[in-house]
Amino acid sequence: MIEHPAFDVEPWCLRETQLNLDVLAQAESVFALSNGHLGWRGNLDEGEPHGLPGSYLNGVHELRPLPYAEAGYGYPESGQTVINVTNGKVIRLLVDDEPFDVRYGELTSHERMLDLRAGVLRRRAEWISPAGCGVRVSSTRLVSFVQRSVAAIEYRVEALDSPVRVVLQSELVTNEQLPAPNGDPRVSAVLEEPLRSEDHAGGGLRAMMVHRTQRSGLRVGAAMDHVIEGPPSMQAATESFADLARVTVTTTLEPGQVLRLVKFVTYGWSAERSLPAVRDQVVAALTGAVKTGWEELVHEQRAYLDDFWERADVELDGDPGIQHAVRFGLFHVLQAGARAEGRAIPAKGLTGPGYDGHAFWDTETFVLPVLTYTAPQAVADALRWRHSTLPLARERASQLGFKGAAFPWRTITGAECSSYWPAGTAAFHINADIAHAASRYMNATGNERFERDVGLELLVETARLWLSLGHFDSHGRWRIDGVTGPDEYSAIADNNVYTNLMAQHNLRGAADAARRHPQQAGQLGIEPPELDAWQAAAEAMLIPYDERLGVHPQAEAFTEHQAWDFAATSAGQYPLLLHFPYFDLYRKQVVKQADLVLAMHLHGEAFTDEQKARNFAYYEQITVRDSSLSACTQAVMAAEVGHLALAHAYLAEAAFMDLEDLEHNTRDGLHIASLAGAWIAVVAGLAGMRERGGALYFCPRLPDDLTRLAFALSFRGRRLRVEVTHEEAAYGLLAGDPLELHHHGQTLTATAARRASAPIPPAPDPGPTPSQPPGREPTPR
Amino acid sequence: MIEHPAFDVEPWCLRETQLNLDVLAQAESVFALSNGHLGWRGNLDEGEPHGLPGSYLNGVHELRPLPYAEAGYGYPESGQTVINVTNGKVIRLLVDDEPFDVRYGELTSHERMLDLRAGVLRRRAEWISPAGCGVRVSSTRLVSFVQRSVAAIEYRVEALDSPVRVVLQSELVTNEQLPAPNGDPRVSAVLEEPLRSEDHAGGGLRAMMVHRTQRSGLRVGAAMDHVIEGPPSMQAATESFADLARVTVTTTLEPGQVLRLVKFVTYGWSAERSLPAVRDQVVAALTGAVKTGWEELVHEQRAYLDDFWERADVELDGDPGIQHAVRFGLFHVLQAGARAEGRAIPAKGLTGPGYDGHAFWDTETFVLPVLTYTAPQAVADALRWRHSTLPLARERASQLGFKGAAFPWRTITGAECSSYWPAGTAAFHINADIAHAASRYMNATGNERFERDVGLELLVETARLWLSLGHFDSHGRWRIDGVTGPDEYSAIADNNVYTNLMAQHNLRGAADAARRHPQQAGQLGIEPPELDAWQAAAEAMLIPYDERLGVHPQAEAFTEHQAWDFAATSAGQYPLLLHFPYFDLYRKQVVKQADLVLAMHLHGEAFTDEQKARNFAYYEQITVRDSSLSACTQAVMAAEVGHLALAHAYLAEAAFMDLEDLEHNTRDGLHIASLAGAWIAVVAGLAGMRERGGALYFCPRLPDDLTRLAFALSFRGRRLRVEVTHEEAAYGLLAGDPLELHHHGQTLTATAARRASAPIPPAPDPGPTPSQPPGREPTPR
Repeated sequence: MIEHPAFDVEPWCLRETQLNLDVLAQAESVFALSNGHLGWRGNLDEGEPHGLPGSYLNGVHELRPLPYAEAGYGYPESGQTVINVTNGKVIRLLVDDEPFDVRYGELTSHERMLDLRAGVLRRRAEWISPAGCGVRVSSTRLVSFVQRSVAAIEYRVEALDSPVRVVLQSELVTNEQLPAPNGDPRVSAVLEEPLRSEDHAGGGLRAMMVHRTQRSGLRVGAAMDHVIEGPPSMQAATESFADLARVTVTTTLEPGQVLRLVKFVTYGWSAERSLPAVRDQVVAALTGAVKTGWEELVHEQRAYLDDFWERADVELDGDPGIQHAVRFGLFHVLQAGARAEGRAIPAKGLTGPGYDGHAFWDTETFVLPVLTYTAPQAVADALRWRHSTLPLARERASQLGFKGAAFPWRTITGAECSSYWPAGTAAFHINADIAHAASRYMNATGNERFERDVGLELLVETARLWLSLGHFDSHGRWRIDGVTGPDEYSAIADNNVYTNLMAQHNLRGAADAARRHPQQAGQLGIEPPELDAWQAAAEAMLIPYDERLGVHPQAEAFTEHQAWDFAATSAGQYPLLLHFPYFDLYRKQVVKQADLVLAMHLHGEAFTDEQKARNFAYYEQITVRDSSLSACTQAVMAAEVGHLALAHAYLAEAAFMDLEDLEHNTRDGLHIASLAGAWIAVVAGLAGMRERGGALYFCPRLPDDLTRLAFALSFRGRRLRVEVTHEEAAYGLLAGDPLELHHHGQTLTATAARRASAPIPPAPDPGPTPSQPPGREPTPR
Repeated sequence: MIEHPAFDVEPWCLRETQLNLDVLAQAESVFALSNGHLGWRGNLDEGEPHGLPGSYLNGVHELRPLPYAEAGYGYPESGQTVINVTNGKVIRLLVDDEPFDVRYGELTSHERMLDLRAGVLRRRAEWISPAGCGVRVSSTRLVSFVQRSVAAIEYRVEALDSPVRVVLQSELVTNEQLPAPNGDPRVSAVLEEPLRSEDHAGGGLRAMMVHRTQRSGLRVGAAMDHVIEGPPSMQAATESFADLARVTVTTTLEPGQVLRLVKFVTYGWSAERSLPAVRDQVVAALTGAVKTGWEELVHEQRAYLDDFWERADVELDGDPGIQHAVRFGLFHVLQAGARAEGRAIPAKGLTGPGYDGHAFWDTETFVLPVLTYTAPQAVADALRWRHSTLPLARERASQLGFKGAAFPWRTITGAECSSYWPAGTAAFHINADIAHAASRYMNATGNERFERDVGLELLVETARLWLSLGHFDSHGRWRIDGVTGPDEYSAIADNNVYTNLMAQHNLRGAADAARRHPQQAGQLGIEPPELDAWQAAAEAMLIPYDERLGVHPQAEAFTEHQAWDFAATSAGQYPLLLHFPYFDLYRKQVVKQADLVLAMHLHGEAFTDEQKARNFAYYEQITVRDSSLSACTQAVMAAEVGHLALAHAYLAEAAFMDLEDLEHNTRDGLHIASLAGAWIAVVAGLAGMRERGGALYFCPRLPDDLTRLAFALSFRGRRLRVEVTHEEAAYGLLAGDPLELHHHGQTLTATAARRASAPIPPAPDPGPTPSQPPGREPTPR
């Protein structure tokens, strides 16, 4: 946990009032700025000390061999790993020749503040150098949502009590030394000196450098320009080298005098374009940024975020901590996805090198649902990226012996990078997760063109995969054997309920979409017998059920397996995967993360209310939440079956995943899906929102401690605003045509003119509160 | 397949009458000599050309890291690989300064012959040098069964038509260059220059060198001495270097004159002993060998083998090819196990570096059954080796979270070296296989002291493992979930029938042995409740059965899985593991090697005759025999259910595995278990021998083409001789007290004085001959 009493709880910002070097790396993740294309970790301006320096460009990666002591057919041989590109954040300060370094001298005050409405990271420090010179340093940093290749910093230094000579060195630094990896496989493989210089130049207050990765062959350009204001004595000089460019500004400041430097930084990269093209691209973006100017960049940023918050804000009265954390999460979800445009949304966004910078099923299952209703264009972009990788996914399916497309379990480019197939290749549900995300987006936006150009093909190619993966058994049931569901403490099981329900939805969705777009379907080679086969498989889908226990086994025979011995498992043995062999985890009833419970959230129609309650209670007892992708789903289903205090606790866990470093790896980047999960826990959990057949259903009900919940949603051209209290819920439209929706089974019509409101019916008795494995209970709010 | 028309079929030898350089490596494996402690591949005396030079000392290995792109708890980090030790075989010949190399000049004749009765490899060649000088070279090589650290060569060179100057260089060569690996994971990882020189010396006709491995820290000594006879002009000199020692003999031979050199080579190694100790050990053995002399070494060897063949020979009339191959196999099984003493019997014996020189379950399941009845002391030694590794096996069990001992899937020292757990760690059946081998040995020998000192503890520690691996389900059935059975095209399945039956036997055997030896049981901490728990688990063991099909699924739900699409699988796609992902192999009904069928062989009492017939036919259709550990078992069960021609064909496949290079990897060493399987196919198959409760049961029945089968067996102090024709079987004792045995349900008593004979009852109609996957039918005899 981040021991960080200095994080203040404020509605619209994350404020750190004291610098704690022990949690520097975690704070760098939390304070990271990104627009989905370019990401800067929250490193100190002066570069050091740092936890983990990090500047990322979405898609820029290096290849590394994937070693196998025993090789096997179809194992990917080459992995991809995100690399730390040229660092444009560095502004070093010398005070009378002493470097400003918070580890030396006296730091009399230090405050950092991530402003969620302005979209900037502010810093203010007062420091007395070892020689006794006092300065006030302040900086404001932004990564522009509006100009996606641009970041900028306003840096000010002021002399306090006596005149000081100051030197500012504003730099571009490539191939920074990185800390050695800690052996945790979730951490990125460190690649030393991944970039080779191709060109560099400097002049005026401007410098530029172009590098290329050695194996992946990507060309990366970075450039900077500056505006400086200070006393007339001020002088400046510029140098450039292979891996370093530096603009140096010197002056002497009298007490109260300020040296102000605005640094504009731009990036560009390409796998295809020539050196001159990449060079010109970053220089052109730089010219544009300088012309825009600092004040206008700040203004654009605020306007972009004002629009976002109007469409997306969640208000939650009664729990200021969660109010704060949910907004923090939404901000980072936006940062991860806003401008990814043609690239993946990685599990850590662009906040750190964790998981090698790969994207997983998290994106489609947890991140895109939030963006679907708050920033739908980002969802279209993310799915267009998946669509652009179809050739690789088709090739992978063919290599594995299947039809259609098999999307990778983890990737940067679309090629499979998972080297452990039981929890990689075998987790075929990712294909249905992608199809589901496409259906959700299409239902929420009615974007016909997207469906024709992108959605249909995603649905069809994944449906083809499923048809080749399953088969009819002799009882006429359609089985999908030997696959891995979401729960990573099980693998290679038959008829995983989540997978089978998702595949069923995928097959039906593909058939429906093909019927809606016969011309495009024809172009994809679909004939009526193929549609019939999809339907027939979907109708006959085997969903195992344990009649004796009255619960659904997560997969066939699951409920016959041995119970995990929780009594013999000590607190220090979590996460279990670091202390027990997969062999034993897979064969016993212990669940890392919601699997059957996620199936109940996404396909509630397949379960009766009684089954939901029994299933939820059953899986609560054996779910240890060693994954960050669980609490939010447990919150949703706890709310649905009526355990509202428990839902509240799980919402808190999802929301505080990184602010409290619950998984002990926030240093490597944020858990974007868990942060998205906080929104899901609120909207699908507390407000009970489901979308079915293009209509919205709500069953809002607040835990005792929360007094009011309000949020906005984009849905089919409307902007819906929902407000919930213990007594009633009101549904109004901020824009758009009247919308029919469902509230606790009652049909209401929301219009722009008038909110539709209805009382919250009394809650039925949910029965006793389910228990969790000893020591794994969520912290009650 | 070895395209080797030059292998002659002779009852007692393997003769090659022509040298085919294309199959040199395969021939080196086939002509390998070994005594289980020391092994020399059948490389040409002059060292080159070679397929793969190989000199091995059982247990001498180097460590190598096992890499994982994604690590996991309990994955072994260090592997072991057999190394090529100092080559003492090399005798180079120069003829008028031209090296004798079969690739140059004219090889007018070349014959090699492995003499199975003499236990020597003979070679005769006539060669005309590029300059036109003719010589006759003959050599006889042996690795002594009697003096386990000794090998020797008699080498003769004779001038043919004109006088020739000859130079012989007899060498010890360390760190030979090996061919680069071919990427097949079954081949040993090549380790370059594994040995570092510690000492060397030479003088007279003698030389010695000591080396040490770098990571495993093993000290390896080799020494040679010579006796030379030739014309008076003969001169000799000796040199020694770090990695080379050389005795050079020069003379001029008149036509008809012979230079004869006898080379004695000894080896020794130790992980513990000092340099002087190892040096003295090899020199002492050398002195002993020289004192014994060549003729006596040859004589001892013959006597050792005469005794073996008297106890072990199999006569098979009607199929000379199989007669030949079965003896060839028996000879190599003896070579693999005879003097392993305190070390494992590797899958390839000491004939090549395949599978890194590791021992697997093959040893206990296929090799030890043969040795149990033909060379039982070797079985006691092999099981004492397993017993000596109990501390490592206990540590492994504890690491995995289980009780008792978990023996490694593959190893040289006893430490787990398997890096792919679904087909390694999860294949827990190896523990029951070891227990079963111990029970079989004890039943066949009545060796009480072994049972007390070794067998009991092996049974008890494996029974403890099983008890911690399984559990009672809510129906009161005892389940073993998530394990891998013998068939490597399935993995991580519930209630594998083979595993559960073997575990049941293991649990019962441990309880019985503990009751027989209460004092030793007490020392092992066994209290009555533990015995009761073993019994209870054994009684309640779940054996799945598919009522609808009337067959046993190999593991639960197996018969519900999709059928493999054999029609769409081309001949070039075998072995399937090189062309399809494990993911798909595991989830479909396709069997690499006998699994349920092996269960029917080893635990026939658990199946009715009708079930055996149906099961056999069912699994025949889906078994592809991509493993060499299958044909023999299919032969056994084909014979039992009455398909005698099929049994004959499978017997042939097992027996010709290496002579015809059926798996295309004989170059890396022989398939010792398959060669053992040929004996099993004859004795357990054609003669239908089973041992139950310390009694022997026979159900002999010959295929049409075989007219007579006779073999000897050692059993409880007797030497039994069985002779079978189509009409009757006769059971005689060569030595020992009368023995009661069972013939087709009839009880007979064999005595030394009189053979008991009984007619073969008419065969019941076995129904239609089962079919195999297209293209995977065994070649009919």
